[in-house]
Amino acid sequence: MTLISGEAYKDSLRNMKLKAFAFGKPIDNLVEHELTGPAIEAVAMTYDLALDPDYQEKMTTISPLTGSRINRLTHVYANSDDLIKRFQLMRDMASRNGMCIGARCVSGNILSALHTLTYVMQKKTGTAYHDRLITFLEKVQGEDLSVAGCITDPKGDRSKRAEEQADPDMYLRIVDEKKNGIVVRGAKFQISGATIAHELLCMPTTALRENEKAYAVSFAIPVDTPGITYLHGAPAPDFRRFNSDRSDLGNPRYGVYNLAHIFFDDVFVPWDRVFLCGETEFTHKLVAQTAPTFRCVTTSCKCGHRDLLLGGSAVIADYNGVAKASHIKEKMAEMLYDGELAWGSIIAAATMGNQTESGSFYPNSLLANVAKRHGTVALWNAARLAVDISGGLIMCSPTAQDLSHPELGPLIDKYMKANPEVQTKDRIKMMRLMEYLTGIGCILVAESTQGGAPVVVQQMMIKGELSQRLEEFKKRVLDLAEIKS
Amino acid sequence: MTLISGEAYKDSLRNMKLKAFAFGKPIDNLVEHELTGPAIEAVAMTYDLALDPDYQEKMTTISPLTGSRINRLTHVYANSDDLIKRFQLMRDMASRNGMCIGARCVSGNILSALHTLTYVMQKKTGTAYHDRLITFLEKVQGEDLSVAGCITDPKGDRSKRAEEQADPDMYLRIVDEKKNGIVVRGAKFQISGATIAHELLCMPTTALRENEKAYAVSFAIPVDTPGITYLHGAPAPDFRRFNSDRSDLGNPRYGVYNLAHIFFDDVFVPWDRVFLCGETEFTHKLVAQTAPTFRCVTTSCKCGHRDLLLGGSAVIADYNGVAKASHIKEKMAEMLYDGELAWGSIIAAATMGNQTESGSFYPNSLLANVAKRHGTVALWNAARLAVDISGGLIMCSPTAQDLSHPELGPLIDKYMKANPEVQTKDRIKMMRLMEYLTGIGCILVAESTQGGAPVVVQQMMIKGELSQRLEEFKKRVLDLAEIKS
Amino acid sequence: MTLISGEAYKDSLRNMKLKAFAFGKPIDNLVEHELTGPAIEAVAMTYDLALDPDYQEKMTTISPLTGSRINRLTHVYANSDDLIKRFQLMRDMASRNGMCIGARCVSGNILSALHTLTYVMQKKTGTAYHDRLITFLEKVQGEDLSVAGCITDPKGDRSKRAEEQADPDMYLRIVDEKKNGIVVRGAKFQISGATIAHELLCMPTTALRENEKAYAVSFAIPVDTPGITYLHGAPAPDFRRFNSDRSDLGNPRYGVYNLAHIFFDDVFVPWDRVFLCGETEFTHKLVAQTAPTFRCVTTSCKCGHRDLLLGGSAVIADYNGVAKASHIKEKMAEMLYDGELAWGSIIAAATMGNQTESGSFYPNSLLANVAKRHGTVALWNAARLAVDISGGLIMCSPTAQDLSHPELGPLIDKYMKANPEVQTKDRIKMMRLMEYLTGIGCILVAESTQGGAPVVVQQMMIKGELSQRLEEFKKRVLDLAEIKS
Amino acid sequence: MTLISGEAYKDSLRNMKLKAFAFGKPIDNLVEHELTGPAIEAVAMTYDLALDPDYQEKMTTISPLTGSRINRLTHVYANSDDLIKRFQLMRDMASRNGMCIGARCVSGNILSALHTLTYVMQKKTGTAYHDRLITFLEKVQGEDLSVAGCITDPKGDRSKRAEEQADPDMYLRIVDEKKNGIVVRGAKFQISGATIAHELLCMPTTALRENEKAYAVSFAIPVDTPGITYLHGAPAPDFRRFNSDRSDLGNPRYGVYNLAHIFFDDVFVPWDRVFLCGETEFTHKLVAQTAPTFRCVTTSCKCGHRDLLLGGSAVIADYNGVAKASHIKEKMAEMLYDGELAWGSIIAAATMGNQTESGSFYPNSLLANVAKRHGTVALWNAARLAVDISGGLIMCSPTAQDLSHPELGPLIDKYMKANPEVQTKDRIKMMRLMEYLTGIGCILVAESTQGGAPVVVQQMMIKGELSQRLEEFKKRVLDLAEIKS
Repeated sequence: MTLISGEAYKDSLRNMKLKAFAFGKPIDNLVEHELTGPAIEAVAMTYDLALDPDYQEKMTTISPLTGSRINRLTHVYANSDDLIKRFQLMRDMASRNGMCIGARCVSGNILSALHTLTYVMQKKTGTAYHDRLITFLEKVQGEDLSVAGCITDPKGDRSKRAEEQADPDMYLRIVDEKKNGIVVRGAKFQISGATIAHELLCMPTTALRENEKAYAVSFAIPVDTPGITYLHGAPAPDFRRFNSDRSDLGNPRYGVYNLAHIFFDDVFVPWDRVFLCGETEFTHKLVAQTAPTFRCVTTSCKCGHRDLLLGGSAVIADYNGVAKASHIKEKMAEMLYDGELAWGSIIAAATMGNQTESGSFYPNSLLANVAKRHGTVALWNAARLAVDISGGLIMCSPTAQDLSHPELGPLIDKYMKANPEVQTKDRIKMMRLMEYLTGIGCILVAESTQGGAPVVVQQMMIKGELSQRLEEFKKRVLDLAEIKS
Repeated sequence: MTLISGEAYKDSLRNMKLKAFAFGKPIDNLVEHELTGPAIEAVAMTYDLALDPDYQEKMTTISPLTGSRINRLTHVYANSDDLIKRFQLMRDMASRNGMCIGARCVSGNILSALHTLTYVMQKKTGTAYHDRLITFLEKVQGEDLSVAGCITDPKGDRSKRAEEQADPDMYLRIVDEKKNGIVVRGAKFQISGATIAHELLCMPTTALRENEKAYAVSFAIPVDTPGITYLHGAPAPDFRRFNSDRSDLGNPRYGVYNLAHIFFDDVFVPWDRVFLCGETEFTHKLVAQTAPTFRCVTTSCKCGHRDLLLGGSAVIADYNGVAKASHIKEKMAEMLYDGELAWGSIIAAATMGNQTESGSFYPNSLLANVAKRHGTVALWNAARLAVDISGGLIMCSPTAQDLSHPELGPLIDKYMKANPEVQTKDRIKMMRLMEYLTGIGCILVAESTQGGAPVVVQQMMIKGELSQRLEEFKKRVLDLAEIKS
Repeated sequence: MTLISGEAYKDSLRNMKLKAFAFGKPIDNLVEHELTGPAIEAVAMTYDLALDPDYQEKMTTISPLTGSRINRLTHVYANSDDLIKRFQLMRDMASRNGMCIGARCVSGNILSALHTLTYVMQKKTGTAYHDRLITFLEKVQGEDLSVAGCITDPKGDRSKRAEEQADPDMYLRIVDEKKNGIVVRGAKFQISGATIAHELLCMPTTALRENEKAYAVSFAIPVDTPGITYLHGAPAPDFRRFNSDRSDLGNPRYGVYNLAHIFFDDVFVPWDRVFLCGETEFTHKLVAQTAPTFRCVTTSCKCGHRDLLLGGSAVIADYNGVAKASHIKEKMAEMLYDGELAWGSIIAAATMGNQTESGSFYPNSLLANVAKRHGTVALWNAARLAVDISGGLIMCSPTAQDLSHPELGPLIDKYMKANPEVQTKDRIKMMRLMEYLTGIGCILVAESTQGGAPVVVQQMMIKGELSQRLEEFKKRVLDLAEIKS
Repeated sequence: MTLISGEAYKDSLRNMKLKAFAFGKPIDNLVEHELTGPAIEAVAMTYDLALDPDYQEKMTTISPLTGSRINRLTHVYANSDDLIKRFQLMRDMASRNGMCIGARCVSGNILSALHTLTYVMQKKTGTAYHDRLITFLEKVQGEDLSVAGCITDPKGDRSKRAEEQADPDMYLRIVDEKKNGIVVRGAKFQISGATIAHELLCMPTTALRENEKAYAVSFAIPVDTPGITYLHGAPAPDFRRFNSDRSDLGNPRYGVYNLAHIFFDDVFVPWDRVFLCGETEFTHKLVAQTAPTFRCVTTSCKCGHRDLLLGGSAVIADYNGVAKASHIKEKMAEMLYDGELAWGSIIAAATMGNQTESGSFYPNSLLANVAKRHGTVALWNAARLAVDISGGLIMCSPTAQDLSHPELGPLIDKYMKANPEVQTKDRIKMMRLMEYLTGIGCILVAESTQGGAPVVVQQMMIKGELSQRLEEFKKRVLDLAEIKS
């Protein structure tokens, strides 16, 4: 048994010595810090549920590698069922913590893709990339580690490719090759869970050309490797984590998105952790296999978030005393319908997925892209409808200080009462949660647009797929119209 | 080997003596008739492809009942894979004939539901309903029959239930019970493929209450059973089947939707063909299990129709000389995206389906309803975009007589030329096909709204599902907001 | 008083000697012909209503040119109110006849634009273009003529401009200049009302470059000018005009769209009818001023058509006995909302319109394009919802012959009865009208996409407008963000 | 000349002695306070622009009451042009300050409606309501006052009407009538600009029944009238106003929405300020006339906000170096199209407005409701697209402290550089503005859903309108179908 508890996960972080900053100050204690603490709670949940007998079936599986029971978040997908269970997990986690478990989410997609690519590369080049990956995987599964997946480069001038940039560091790159490893420089941006994972797993953000060998690099290193600096993002709603009461936060226990920018200042990576080193010809396929799973997981958690929006809409309608209004039910049915459309395509993408040479498995690319594109729109629509259902108080709730103020407290209590069976302070707490869930008080709705690659990428993929399918479709209409072509 | 050829299917119809009418006149020869002939061609395709070595894998399976290779259209679904293969078949057939294979489509859904219900009923009541069904199934599979599924009743005054109608015949009902069988009276409306099948399989259109026993009836009888009258529907575009040239028809070989109204004038049904007789308590479940598959098949064929709209848009863009315009590609990508969203939910419904007591299998109901609701909208949108891409000629193409007119022919040839590599007459033929595919020259786009139950039924189901899921969703937000409930 | 009656209009057509064909045969008697007769009825309505004391206020105005009361359809727009009244007229006419009054619709937009352009050209070039136009206008107003506007050229190979075509006749052009006039050759395609008007008014379909002088031509000639051949379009639903009963037609009195292709075989035009002759530099502005009004009128009549879809949905819901269902009301509210959005932009375009040098007036271009783009989508959506509300019978109504058949008639009468207060034959008639209104039995829904220029043209215009407005918008955000630019 | 400067407006506020709270603490100095200060800046702009010679034409008009030049924000609408100018003003103001001028916005709609209602009431009842209103108006115009309109009541249990509430104070009511005036108790919720105006103008939030006389009350009083307590709303993004640098705020100068809840603890109102006192029979019309203008103004400012989203998207695209990408242009065109649809209906509502007995004027109700409903959706869509265009940094920008940190500053500067011509700190500032504009850092997107009444109110109005229009529409289809009704 290699599964550890949430508490053990937290303890493991206490020993980390990261060079991490937030709001201009060093983060001294990850577990207690206003911005990392709640994110750690969300990740800890993934550890605890794996040990929960009622949940173990969903959260764990037997590793084909080690034969031990492992967390599904460290598993390489081997078939449709693995993907479906993983996507269900993502949805369920999000609907439990209203947040992100990025510290062990994205890496699963990269590992499954690397599983194939290193296999092929090792066969072709002789370099033991696949053996190294398997060794790394055994460690991750054996120690139940959290691995943050690192993809997005700063990109600099978007009109130029990696090797055309004025500053060559705008994409993470190999600056030196030593006897026992490589040295990398550059940055990875908006990495979920970076500071609260055990390991970072990096891969290129895009397919590369032959003259971009220095940028064709994939590797894994401990988060506290010397030379790495982390900068926590500071979205508007997070400022209040430093100056507000728990009851003003909406989602007090978990509600902070742990996005960090990572700067690599000539960081050394030993050879046994290097999974790609200059083989540009494999980068297209690496990206192409990572992308569909990534689209699916980021859309799956948004389905869970939509479940919360639905639940929250239902509760706030109860609290407002309008739960029976037919227009409320129509709006909630709309949220369900729209969200299930995205969910349907996710499940279909898994069902119609593809086995690779190495035995890893990835979703159907068209359906994965369709799911992501629609999932984004569905979540924004759900947020809009939830704001609508919530009523005006979602924009102007009072604070805990207001409530405890001797003069204001009673006024609020009297006038903000709606459903006679609900306490005013609970109604306000729920408004705060709705504020959070609808994206006024968090970045999750925005993240639905940005996470898992922006919409244009899906659109391009859909167009690519279109041109492939069109010839067959054209043939059929020519036959029907009895035109000889 | 029990599979027969399309030609054998046609021959079998030649011997039928139906009392069938169209446009006020008897249909004398089904195979040659302007309205039934093309529909028969479409169904014949399902026979021929089952014998085609390249296609057999998709079109046939081994019957668990008979051990022989059978057409999948006569198969009782036993698992997700059966459903997926069936839905893929529907899509593929539609994209080959641009029409409907209703004569053997709907019945599959009814048979799979009856498989469960008769099993449960036989266990509960002792009546040999399931044994009868199995015997019927063996005949259908053994003789490779086409069975038309008959569900929709006339319904009369929609504000009243079956037993409240002024005229008790507005829902098909048992009017007499004899020693060797029952006598039924009433009608079934807009039944696809009714006149070109071998057997009719009837079931109630809605769940029934205890006082509606006479309406709780399901049975199968040969299409030429005495007492049955068929009336072929007459949509606007079909009038031209009597006064136009083949090249004016768009989809000349297959393009007629074979919808008929069936009137039962005290028709006798022997006991061994009766599968439900008064057991109202099972009607809800019968309808509930038939519905999701029905939603999925009618949406699957619309996906095939959408593939044709896409193919047609691509060809007409070539013919018009605008294939490279970016707005054309955007519109086609939109059609693909929108249609795959519906397709994704179909596949997901199959993947997330449920096994029943008898071993038959049906799709997840929420996803099936979501698929149908979106599939309708997606097809109308695709039709609109295809009209847009086609250009104005789609509204005002010349006829074959115009083309062969000595004076007009050369003018048309000269002025309607666009892409220099395409013959004018082919461009006009393709315009006719686009006219057909977009619903100006056929009813398929409208049928996407009406087939497989109207949208409100899906919406009601979605709302029903909503209320079931809401409690769990509500619990989660209360936890997050730290409110004790 | 120069207004004539509908009967007088019909009489005037009886004397016309057109070379017109439909379905490969000459049209001998326009007023009685199956395809032109109903269209003539729709246009006759515009004459009769102008004489109707209750309607005269809406339909007529005093000509600033002649001082007499004229039909608004022959008026040059001089202010917002003229445009609004005209757009209201279009909506109202369409909701009275469910068809098109193209024989006197498009020309109003061209005349208003030519009013400006000839004014400017005459001032610049000295040629009496404006005087000629005024003389022509005085005749049109004085004799209450119908003038068909002719814009769309065949266009040939769309990837090439007019003067690059292999066949130089793919855009209407001047082939000879004589002492007393010009000779033109080419064609104009899908011209509404061409065969049932008194005059044709032609203009280029696109802005032209300097080397395309032969194509820069605008003129008016009587419809029966020698050398002109008309070919009536033959959309699928029109075939039935030759083989069906009046009660099968849905909109029996008016329901045929009179689209014709016009071929000009070296047609002579006298100088006093030539309004543009080689001045390519003015074509851009001519097109740019015609377009917004054209967008608005074609969207206005679609609003009237939407009113009919709404009314029809309400009646069919009554007839089906479901008028009180809340989902029916929701759908109709959706149709109203969506349609009024388009209507709002039309009225706004008129309100925000622009006065030109000559005193003619045209709508705001951005709002006109927005209106057209949305109007198309709104009508397709309304058609989809109306099919949904109608129920399955919209796809398969019986014919008049079925109804009068001794055996079928009583069956239909019995089983197709729904609302007990409505006769079965009226329910079927209404289904036929719904079939017509939703585009299964007519081309109007498709025409909403094609009429008034395809969607891409609006989209391009919107993008053009975007780039103009963007600088101001950008300035404002830079100020807000306190960034010095 | 009665127009005062922004500075004079600020000075006038300095003398106010309000009992106002925010975040549990009294607001001591309105002009300097973190939450009211920026809102005051936005309102001050409306004063300064009225004195700006270049802008005066748009911002001012001559009062028919006083004959002096007044700010349009204190004007009673007398015709379409007044409404259009006012709506243009709202759009323009919003696109200049990215915020709300609520302190003088809503009241204009109430005043115009009261103008009519008091006129009618005075004629009917003899009470000098209209004379009092005119006197009040002369003061407002003469002293260039800011008047906050107060409509929304707490409402308590939504399933009950005002007089059925357990606590009778859930709707503002008259608790005593004295010789020289009345005494009111209750609250008004989420009132824009309440604490930074000079006067409060109250009216009922809904039509009242005869037994609800105590709730039929409308009056105006100075904001610092004894007995009034204000509580500033505390949306999530506003917390950071207390702990962040100017450059982190996105819209530093203006960006705080000044929403306050107002509690009336037995507040005395002299008779000359009472405009409605128990006349429930007029409340329906009062609400019905206020609503359409209110819908239009709140949608107009959202159009201005949309202009900023467009401008911001364009700038951020420049800054990211992707301004020329076609998908960026498509998205911006979509934002323009969608927003102009709402704008079109606003202008049309004004154009098609109605004159009342007293000479005041209000917009067409259907078009106003259509505009509001679409305006909300359009703004959410625009926000989603703007997040999409912005890129991931919108979720995780660094703070000013990060930028000035000796170690982090250079890293950020190096790696967050994109377009080489743009400074990194400006790119980050612009990301902060996008964060603000898209609703992550402000409540404006949410407010688009809540302001001007929630969507269901518009939907109900649209349905009401539907039933009125339907009879005429039905008549027309019956005529067309040749059915005698």
